Amino acid sequence: MNTPYGLSVDVDLPYDQALEKVTEALKTEGFGVLTTIDVKATMKAKLDVDFRRYVILGACNPPLAHSALSEELEIGLLLPCNVIVYERDEGGSTISAINALAAMSFTGNPALETIAQEASARLERVLAAIGS
Amino acid sequence: MNTPYGLSVDVDLPYDQALEKVTEALKTEGFGVLTTIDVKATMKAKLDVDFRRYVILGACNPPLAHSALSEELEIGLLLPCNVIVYERDEGGSTISAINALAAMSFTGNPALETIAQEASARLERVLAAIGS
Repeated sequence: MNTPYGLSVDVDLPYDQALEKVTEALKTEGFGVLTTIDVKATMKAKLDVDFRRYVILGACNPPLAHSALSEELEIGLLLPCNVIVYERDEGGSTISAINALAAMSFTGNPALETIAQEASARLERVLAAIGS
Repeated sequence: MNTPYGLSVDVDLPYDQALEKVTEALKTEGFGVLTTIDVKATMKAKLDVDFRRYVILGACNPPLAHSALSEELEIGLLLPCNVIVYERDEGGSTISAINALAAMSFTGNPALETIAQEASARLERVLAAIGS
C-alpha cells in the first residue's frame, strides 16, 4: 500500500529473500546500504516485546547525497533514503521506499527537487525490479 | 538555523565534544543512538571528496517507536529520528534534530500526532540542554 511518504510493493518472497533482493536492486541503482536496523531485535532487546521481522535500511546514493548536502547543509536530517522490508501477516513480504520527492518538497527548497526526482526515479526502478 | 523540517542549535563546542554532549542528552530523554553515519568518511571513501566533519545519528526512543509502528506499520520509513552534528565554518558546531511533529504530519494520520508531539517535546529538551 502506498502512503503519502512511501512507495510500496508486496512480493511472494519470504523475508530473507526479499531483503537480499532489495539490497541487490539498490546496488544496481547506485545505493549502498549504510545502516541496518533490525526492528524485531531492537524491540525485543529494549522493550521485551515480540514484533514481526522488520528491517529499516538506510540507503545512500553517494553522488546524490553529496549534491543534496552541498545544496543544503541541514539536509542530512532527511538522509539516507529509508527502505523497509517486513513480513506480511498473510505470508510474503512488503518492501517500501521513502518517497524522496515528497520528502524533499517538505524542505521548501526548489533546488533540491531535481536531485529528489533522480533519487525517486531510481527508487521506483528498485521497486519495479523487485515486483517483476 | 531552523528549517521547516528541523530544529537547530549552534554551540561553541568543538565537534567531538558536541557529539558527546548530544549523545548524553539524547540518553537522558530516552533516545538510544541506533545508527551513526560518518558523512565525511563516507564521502571520502565513496567519492574521494573532502567534506566537513558531519555525522547523522539515528536516535530511537523505543516506546515511542513501538507506538508509532503499532499505529502505522509503514512508519519505519520515517524512523529513527535523525540528529545531525557538524562543524561550522566559523568555529563551533551545529546540532540539529528532525522536526518530528512536521515529519509525522506528513503522514496524514492524526493518530500519530500525539506520539510525534511527545517525540518533539523530548528532542526540543535535548537541544535546550545542549544550548544552555
